Amino acid sequence: MRLDVVTIFPEYLDPLNVSLVGKARARGQLDVHVHDLREWTYDRHNTVDDTPYGGGPGMVMKTEPWGDCLDEALANGYESGAHGPVLVVPTPSGRPFTQELAVELSERPWLIFTPARYEGIDRRVMDEYATRLPVYEVSIGDYVLAGGEAAVLVITEAVARLLPGVLGNAESHRDDSFAPGAMANLLEGPVYTKPPEWRGHGIPDVLLSGHHGKIARWRRDEAFKRTAQHRPDLIERCEATAFDKKDRETLSILGWAPEPGGRFWRRPRDVEE
Amino acid sequence: MRLDVVTIFPEYLDPLNVSLVGKARARGQLDVHVHDLREWTYDRHNTVDDTPYGGGPGMVMKTEPWGDCLDEALANGYESGAHGPVLVVPTPSGRPFTQELAVELSERPWLIFTPARYEGIDRRVMDEYATRLPVYEVSIGDYVLAGGEAAVLVITEAVARLLPGVLGNAESHRDDSFAPGAMANLLEGPVYTKPPEWRGHGIPDVLLSGHHGKIARWRRDEAFKRTAQHRPDLIERCEATAFDKKDRETLSILGWAPEPGGRFWRRPRDVEE
Repeated sequence: MRLDVVTIFPEYLDPLNVSLVGKARARGQLDVHVHDLREWTYDRHNTVDDTPYGGGPGMVMKTEPWGDCLDEALANGYESGAHGPVLVVPTPSGRPFTQELAVELSERPWLIFTPARYEGIDRRVMDEYATRLPVYEVSIGDYVLAGGEAAVLVITEAVARLLPGVLGNAESHRDDSFAPGAMANLLEGPVYTKPPEWRGHGIPDVLLSGHHGKIARWRRDEAFKRTAQHRPDLIERCEATAFDKKDRETLSILGWAPEPGGRFWRRPRDVEE
Repeated sequence: MRLDVVTIFPEYLDPLNVSLVGKARARGQLDVHVHDLREWTYDRHNTVDDTPYGGGPGMVMKTEPWGDCLDEALANGYESGAHGPVLVVPTPSGRPFTQELAVELSERPWLIFTPARYEGIDRRVMDEYATRLPVYEVSIGDYVLAGGEAAVLVITEAVARLLPGVLGNAESHRDDSFAPGAMANLLEGPVYTKPPEWRGHGIPDVLLSGHHGKIARWRRDEAFKRTAQHRPDLIERCEATAFDKKDRETLSILGWAPEPGGRFWRRPRDVEE
């Protein structure tokens, strides 16, 4: 997979040399190119921004440096044999970046990231490239960053770990939160390792029982409780048929109840948003 | 504000020297301490993880290195006059990190981050420190990373930009997506700057009209359309009374309709999840 990143803070992308992504680069699984946007400016102040049309606070990133830099990145990529580029634009106005979208992007051979600063990039840049390649405007969450670079690190890491051969034995997709499987739509519960006692804290007896069925049940119950506490929205989105008898007991104990018709369960009123 | 980060990849936190956060450090507004967890291991392999109790794939991070390192970070901080620490644990099982939570954390004088790798940290570490200080387990989004370090960069940046005096003139909170104000719960629409024509793309006439009312209306309409497209969940959560006549027209054109009772509007059926 080829990755291009265009930014005014190239050094922010240094973590792409570290850990899993760094190792994937070293093995040749990722071909990363970080471009300094200011090299595509032509005035002595290396200006990348200007005031917004229509007034208002903040600055908008100008079309020309982005256009010229993206053209060259595309030309270089095609020349070196890359194909199928998509533009990934991190922006709080984008559609949510999810595990599903991470999987989709991991199947693409070439991602070009355009992390912006200030109030964002002049709209015409996205309009122009949308005529030539798919453009994904994505938001990594409901909060505001100073720029898109941290979002690029997040997206790159979420995508890179899904590439074949990138995850080592110490890591695993299988029980990931948000991954398909028995834990679908449940957050992971607590985990424990040796020693069996630490500063007066023991571990749940069931984990030492060697009884696989009981352990699986305990893990599901803990995941269920945690999800109900931290992400009631995930449980409210589940069809009631996804819950087994014990799940329903757990929900009842936590004060949840089936809504009229019984297709979905709802959280207790006093903790509603 | 004091920040401590405990990690097995200290170099991943190098972006804390860059841009807004780097400048806030240089001005003395942020006092950042990055700790290498492996310095608190006592075997020749510097082991930080072990197999999970109860079996299953992946590895769990051990209690002792975390406990010893956190104890020392806390002792050092208190010695240097810091107070009011909170522990921020990035984990996909946490409660969602939102702009509201960024504001809450920005009012704290001392944040200690514990980005984990593998299947996460032995639960007893959080249980132990929860007896001494507030523990926030937070998730930056519904996707899986290789480790919590990228999440620390995200949270730190979202928090740091809210500190008094950190944002420069070129930047602004005022119209942030997810910030309170006229755009509450609406994503920002497109922005434009000079030149008025680029590669055959012009800009909307209204932005050159000088008519503030029309410009504000256009911006709200664009924000509305974008929100309906990318984040219908935000509009479905709004009470209908938040929409003015023009908003309702826009929603109607997009195929939305008020639900029975009229308190909320619902998106068209064919684009439902």
